[in-house]
Amino acid sequence: MVNYDRILKLSLERGFYFPSSDIYSDSPAGFWEYGPNGNNIKNKFIELWRRELVRRDEMVEIDGSQIMSKNVFIASGHIDNFSDPIIICNKCKAILRADKYIFEKLGIIVPERLSNDEIDLIVNEHNLKCPKCCSDFHKTERFNMMFKVGIGPNNDEAYLRPETCQAIFVDFVRIYKTMRGKLPFPIAQVGKSFRNEIAPRQSLLRLREFYQAEIEVFCNPNQLDNISKFEDINKTNLTIDDGLNVYKITAKEAVERKIIPNKLIAYYLTLLYQFYEKTGLDMTKSRFRKLSDQEKAFYATVAFDLELQTSIGWLELVACNYRSNYDLSQHSKISKEKMEIMDPITNEKVLPHVFELSLGIDRSIYSIIENSFSEDKDNNRTFLKLKPYLAPILVGILPLVKKPEIEEIAKRIYANLKKDFDTYYDDSGSIGRRYRRLEEIGVPFAITVDYDSLIDNTVTIRYRDTMEQKRIKIKDLRCFFNENTII
Amino acid sequence: MVNYDRILKLSLERGFYFPSSDIYSDSPAGFWEYGPNGNNIKNKFIELWRRELVRRDEMVEIDGSQIMSKNVFIASGHIDNFSDPIIICNKCKAILRADKYIFEKLGIIVPERLSNDEIDLIVNEHNLKCPKCCSDFHKTERFNMMFKVGIGPNNDEAYLRPETCQAIFVDFVRIYKTMRGKLPFPIAQVGKSFRNEIAPRQSLLRLREFYQAEIEVFCNPNQLDNISKFEDINKTNLTIDDGLNVYKITAKEAVERKIIPNKLIAYYLTLLYQFYEKTGLDMTKSRFRKLSDQEKAFYATVAFDLELQTSIGWLELVACNYRSNYDLSQHSKISKEKMEIMDPITNEKVLPHVFELSLGIDRSIYSIIENSFSEDKDNNRTFLKLKPYLAPILVGILPLVKKPEIEEIAKRIYANLKKDFDTYYDDSGSIGRRYRRLEEIGVPFAITVDYDSLIDNTVTIRYRDTMEQKRIKIKDLRCFFNENTII
Repeated sequence: MVNYDRILKLSLERGFYFPSSDIYSDSPAGFWEYGPNGNNIKNKFIELWRRELVRRDEMVEIDGSQIMSKNVFIASGHIDNFSDPIIICNKCKAILRADKYIFEKLGIIVPERLSNDEIDLIVNEHNLKCPKCCSDFHKTERFNMMFKVGIGPNNDEAYLRPETCQAIFVDFVRIYKTMRGKLPFPIAQVGKSFRNEIAPRQSLLRLREFYQAEIEVFCNPNQLDNISKFEDINKTNLTIDDGLNVYKITAKEAVERKIIPNKLIAYYLTLLYQFYEKTGLDMTKSRFRKLSDQEKAFYATVAFDLELQTSIGWLELVACNYRSNYDLSQHSKISKEKMEIMDPITNEKVLPHVFELSLGIDRSIYSIIENSFSEDKDNNRTFLKLKPYLAPILVGILPLVKKPEIEEIAKRIYANLKKDFDTYYDDSGSIGRRYRRLEEIGVPFAITVDYDSLIDNTVTIRYRDTMEQKRIKIKDLRCFFNENTII
Repeated sequence: MVNYDRILKLSLERGFYFPSSDIYSDSPAGFWEYGPNGNNIKNKFIELWRRELVRRDEMVEIDGSQIMSKNVFIASGHIDNFSDPIIICNKCKAILRADKYIFEKLGIIVPERLSNDEIDLIVNEHNLKCPKCCSDFHKTERFNMMFKVGIGPNNDEAYLRPETCQAIFVDFVRIYKTMRGKLPFPIAQVGKSFRNEIAPRQSLLRLREFYQAEIEVFCNPNQLDNISKFEDINKTNLTIDDGLNVYKITAKEAVERKIIPNKLIAYYLTLLYQFYEKTGLDMTKSRFRKLSDQEKAFYATVAFDLELQTSIGWLELVACNYRSNYDLSQHSKISKEKMEIMDPITNEKVLPHVFELSLGIDRSIYSIIENSFSEDKDNNRTFLKLKPYLAPILVGILPLVKKPEIEEIAKRIYANLKKDFDTYYDDSGSIGRRYRRLEEIGVPFAITVDYDSLIDNTVTIRYRDTMEQKRIKIKDLRCFFNENTII
């Protein structure tokens, strides 16, 4: 059975991902690296995201700094609010995340907005003690999760961004003007974000340094149902859990029944759904979960999480927040710059509202690998059923035997394909073993060059999922791979 | 005439790049963001690098953490050595970079390895004073250029990487084994690096947060001339400046005459040269400059910089260092992990040496934009002569007039092309103005839909560089753009 540990083992052994600076004993938790195979999947995932969301929807994409000035995070609220409650043992100085510890010991869910005093009340009432030395705790404190850095010889205060979106907000007016924008105007960004988690865990699932792909849709709050392109995709079936009921309905119906509040939000949730369908994830295991008032961020008026059922439970892949004009009005206030723009369609001056799609790349990669993991007991093999356009390697090229004339053909094919397709040449071990190695990391095709190739200029193509084999002319290979990577 | 300021103006006005957090007065210098057009060029540049270097050469690519533990940088030498000399004014506390100030005032080049005492000697001998208040300076100090961060609630010491390569060294043995490597084994990585420069300047040219694309070639030091694939490319003409003479010779001759010390180094310098040729840079303005013993890093036994002549002088694009086994032996020493591997070709145990190609992406992007800047005075226009596969937008789609039936065709073409090609729809302003806007940012093609399109299903394609126009059938457009983006 596939589970988290099985995928981790595969990842460590086959170059998908592994802990950072692993040879050092002081290497901190929560930092992982993508090895060659994982890096290829991750890059292809980002390209697919660009194709299916950015280019499809007339978005623009920027790439901003990871280090930003203090004022940015004063305005965003991160300096004041982006913290976890911690309790420190009076005696052994062990530091625990208060809400997690309370849940672990008592099963009580601590809402995000509970004050330190309210948390102290719970700790005292239930007489919670340090799990290591059984002593009492200090009063609850706050631990800000941003990483602080000092700039230049004067050590000016700045921070590593905890989310990619702030650059989009801060740069919005400039981008809107230079790109001749019209509302709704979506701006995307992909890159690293940083959160100084107290207890990072589960490899790619809770990292201190992680990849996000965020989209901020700037919109006129009076035009949220004026989205004509919604008609093109509103027949898509979505699963929506509003906390009371689970609906399996079309996007169109969800808007009509007010389960999704407007067409703009429904349009982007649908795009997101269609994108993840293309990654090969089993979307019958997905849901858009509407967050309760207790759960959602304080600036959000409506929020949906796109979640996927995995071996470790429901996993949040994308957080979708309607942020109103919170961000632009805050940055405008602190920077003293005007951030209203003209909406050329309604001809009015507006401070745009923002609908955000904040996608976690690392979790998505984990989910795609887990979801694609396949066991074929009849043939004693495991393989990753990855889409060809997401596979780390598209094709393995295998000379059947070590004969110069066969190797020469195999090498020629390899040289001809490798710049355009991720290609791997393998001449060591039995052919069966070479197939296993390829399919274990999700390579969808293998080419075998054999004695017949010398006679008729054909090779065998083997399909990973079915193990079916067919002969194909060498000159048709490029065409075959072009056709088989169409998205 | 093209110069730095002209390119900066274009970049600010047209969404190539701009200062980070610009609306805030406290935004620190040395941080710039890529706007939509610059981001597209940057991403396409990285894809070209992958194609021409990583996939071509059987490299593997990883993506490691940006934050790494203290021990990593003890081993690498950055904690002790990665610093600039600074002098602080006794009175007004102004902080200056000592070597830069000495060069500015006295024209004396301060070698990197000069001690603080030796710098003090120069300052005192020439009686240098603070430029702001004319007071004396304190003694020279060192300012470490790494950004320190604290991890977790215990604030464990870690650093933002000042170069991407350390993850490659630290992970080398794991990657070599999981990927079944053979020497020479090149590992690549692209990503952000961070240097706390005292005086960042010139937008993309000296940043505190910047993009590198690094390649570390692990090799057996006894096999540096056993590089058979060098024969395929050794006829390439290179310009090499060894400090005494400038040679314009083939790579082959450079090795024979010992101007380049071995075939391995010559092979990678040639690959690099061929890659930059594909970016469209005028390589007659390039040189490989061999660094003197004074200039090169202390761990390097041989070093070449790939430099380009730009409007602001020679600009270093890639630093190529033969690092011997410095990195692996240091990490092995500090981590106590063995880092020798078996070389299956010679059947011996080796601690590999490393030849490094450290490419500056941001400077390359600047150079490509500057180099492509073209003025056509006869037609009163400027344009960027970018290669189609590097252009931020491949094609603009322009309905000649605002008539529903013409707009409908234009929109259909747009919808059909945009997922696969970067496409821009523009219906506002005169057709001439629309052409100007496109060519100014380097869009190589424009499609005009007109009355004839209604009759014969053809459109006009206009070429940016020649302004030539021709009719093409709508159904042949996809094929046209596929052919015109071949690299």
